[in-house]
Amino acid sequence: MHTTSIVDLLRRQPVGETVTISGWVRTRRDSGSFSFLEINDGSCLANLQLIAEEQLVNYASEVKKLTTGCSLRAHGLLVASPAKGQTVEVRAERIEVIGWADPETYPLQKKRHSFEFLRSIAHLRPRTNALGAVARVRSALSFAIHRFFHEHGFLQVHTPVITTSDCEGAGEMFTVTALEPGQLQGPDPFNNDFFGRRAGLTVSGQLQAEIFALSHGRVYTFGPTFRAEHSNTSRHLAEFWMLEPEMAFCDLAGNRDVAESLIKFLVCVALDECGEDLALFDQHVAKGLIDKLTQVRDRPFVHLPYTDAVTELQRAGRQFEFPVQWGIDLQAEHERFLCEEVAQAPVVVTNYPADIKPFYMRLDDDGRTVAAMDILVAGIGELIGGSQREERYEVLAARMAAAGLDLAQYGWYLDLRRYGSVPHSGFGLGFERLVQFVTGMQNIRDVIPFPRTPGSAPC
Amino acid sequence: MHTTSIVDLLRRQPVGETVTISGWVRTRRDSGSFSFLEINDGSCLANLQLIAEEQLVNYASEVKKLTTGCSLRAHGLLVASPAKGQTVEVRAERIEVIGWADPETYPLQKKRHSFEFLRSIAHLRPRTNALGAVARVRSALSFAIHRFFHEHGFLQVHTPVITTSDCEGAGEMFTVTALEPGQLQGPDPFNNDFFGRRAGLTVSGQLQAEIFALSHGRVYTFGPTFRAEHSNTSRHLAEFWMLEPEMAFCDLAGNRDVAESLIKFLVCVALDECGEDLALFDQHVAKGLIDKLTQVRDRPFVHLPYTDAVTELQRAGRQFEFPVQWGIDLQAEHERFLCEEVAQAPVVVTNYPADIKPFYMRLDDDGRTVAAMDILVAGIGELIGGSQREERYEVLAARMAAAGLDLAQYGWYLDLRRYGSVPHSGFGLGFERLVQFVTGMQNIRDVIPFPRTPGSAPC
Repeated sequence: MHTTSIVDLLRRQPVGETVTISGWVRTRRDSGSFSFLEINDGSCLANLQLIAEEQLVNYASEVKKLTTGCSLRAHGLLVASPAKGQTVEVRAERIEVIGWADPETYPLQKKRHSFEFLRSIAHLRPRTNALGAVARVRSALSFAIHRFFHEHGFLQVHTPVITTSDCEGAGEMFTVTALEPGQLQGPDPFNNDFFGRRAGLTVSGQLQAEIFALSHGRVYTFGPTFRAEHSNTSRHLAEFWMLEPEMAFCDLAGNRDVAESLIKFLVCVALDECGEDLALFDQHVAKGLIDKLTQVRDRPFVHLPYTDAVTELQRAGRQFEFPVQWGIDLQAEHERFLCEEVAQAPVVVTNYPADIKPFYMRLDDDGRTVAAMDILVAGIGELIGGSQREERYEVLAARMAAAGLDLAQYGWYLDLRRYGSVPHSGFGLGFERLVQFVTGMQNIRDVIPFPRTPGSAPC
Repeated sequence: MHTTSIVDLLRRQPVGETVTISGWVRTRRDSGSFSFLEINDGSCLANLQLIAEEQLVNYASEVKKLTTGCSLRAHGLLVASPAKGQTVEVRAERIEVIGWADPETYPLQKKRHSFEFLRSIAHLRPRTNALGAVARVRSALSFAIHRFFHEHGFLQVHTPVITTSDCEGAGEMFTVTALEPGQLQGPDPFNNDFFGRRAGLTVSGQLQAEIFALSHGRVYTFGPTFRAEHSNTSRHLAEFWMLEPEMAFCDLAGNRDVAESLIKFLVCVALDECGEDLALFDQHVAKGLIDKLTQVRDRPFVHLPYTDAVTELQRAGRQFEFPVQWGIDLQAEHERFLCEEVAQAPVVVTNYPADIKPFYMRLDDDGRTVAAMDILVAGIGELIGGSQREERYEVLAARMAAAGLDLAQYGWYLDLRRYGSVPHSGFGLGFERLVQFVTGMQNIRDVIPFPRTPGSAPC
């Protein structure tokens, strides 16, 4: 049952060899005594053309009934193709039809389908060109992340999904329970629950990653995170993947260096390894995509302290929806202006006001700002958010108390500052935003295999 | 702030160079006018010895007060070491103490701590030799999994954690809700919940992985899975990581080949890349571990149909706690007997009775068994469970109905058999069991960074 993938055949082009391929019919076109079948097996965007002649025993009975979506196995000679747009094709000696796809009901006929329609058939949409390409780019980027950190001596840590800590304190955690609704009664309904207290789905693995940074030095966590936020937009998901490196003995400048190297590396990998898929996006989804990515790879990022960023925005002479003054959190319109008009490159904004950032960020000497950094990119806004962490016990305890956290519950986090505390830093990269940035896809629901959004979790 | 990792220094041994290291004190020993400091930075098991002489400006005021767990940065000359058990050491020219660790309260003093005690300090236990080594082996195996599948042309698919499908139908799913206990009332309490229906934490990514196998050919998913099972044992976790490859155009024999290659590859990686850590486990945790792993790498796996396995067990002349007859599910005692006594190698048991296996496994031609396979290894039992999937629409629909599944809810799963269905196969590997197998650790709670068990989810 050995078959060769189409990506491998197109790369090697073993003309004159007999090959076996397995895949799905994209189109069939008849021409007199033979048919052209375009076969795709998902290993790459390109189809392989199969020439089926009427001498095949099942030509009339089966081959001429093949339609989009049918599966088959074919055996034949790989030859140079006289047709335009392809270099090789297969002259079928045997075609075994494996599965049919009734053209009356199969939703993916040969025509353009809207991304919105495709979202309604999450189990079939990976079979389309665009969503199939997204899946390949997503996988390539995911592997590249592991490679980058492995090569730089980072340990991967699997931080937990179920947690009793709320890293961001934003109150947007899903609750996890093993009880039935009727059992969730009384003043302390979670006392009898699985974990003996209320537990939820993590919003970030950072706090737990810090534990391992303080034992192993350089670590990262890369996994699903969650927000129970009722935002029905093209930018929000209830479940999304986040990459979070955490580094001991590392300050904000070191943190920024790692983040910049990472982004440039990932863009390189996409350009080098996903060229065919990126060309599809450049042509049909986001014109100029490859130029944009090439510039990100080649140009230095711009470094801009928050205070200078505010000055830039104020003197821009632009009417923003949200007026700019020192102390505000930057909005998407400000972030896009900075990296699309001021810098024309990714911008690293640092040292934000302490009041708009979480308790764990290190207080700067001025007492007003923290050692935070956001990396902003065109079209997306914030791709990375990070900081040097507060490593001083007294300062951290005071900030946690001011943020209203129960210090007793976070004793373990404070312990990291009681015993062998060190300067350390890290950041979070929203993986779906990265995939959007690299593919140009507009809606975040189209860059994750199974989007979870308000009212929707099919499959 | 550039420092070099200890693993790098010990590998390169740049004698005569001035180096900067950062890490944590394991021990301090004074000898007349100088002190020996054993420094660990988590990059490897070995410490680097630092020689601190009394000429250092802070020798009396700080260096002589250093205790286990303190953090420091040191600058000095790397020299060949006259001491036994190490090849190089650093003569400190400057030592900067960064963080103290009060020996009165710091729980990790220089002595053996029980794994049970260490579980009570999940945030500090990665700083111990054994748990630190587990973290490195776990990370190496995780990366090796990604590498194996990347090199074999598999796509990684991020299947969802939150789902409305129960793959195993065992009713052991955690419920996920954005409602407060008081809001979960009435006959349809989840109608007003975030997803508009009851949703839970996935028990397997298989069904969703099948979607992508039928568009992209060869895929895998590797992520957290969940069981709300009240089992307080050394073998159960409520949250654990599972690897699940899924391959189109692949039968049970092809499935078995991939699984065997994978296990041998992962064992090779552990032996090649984690030698120092494995030696620790061999010496202190599981005598003979490295021999056992070497045999798994070198010996062929034994293939045993279930029916033959039952015969072997029946004629063993052994009194089992659970009597053996055709039709039973094999218990841990049977599994261990097969691979520890009958085969002395990993055993692949295939073609189990249909009645004890899930609906999605392909019915064999005899109508009594299914194309299932379990891979059993010494000390662990089932490391891998897999099957060829039922690709025939009518057969699958009948088995789903017999299993009591709501066919309407699984219409998407049946669609995969209506449109371009192909033979396909896959398996699940419990990642913690793999880490146990490779490290010899006895309790599953010690091979995952943050174990979630009944009554316990700290951090």
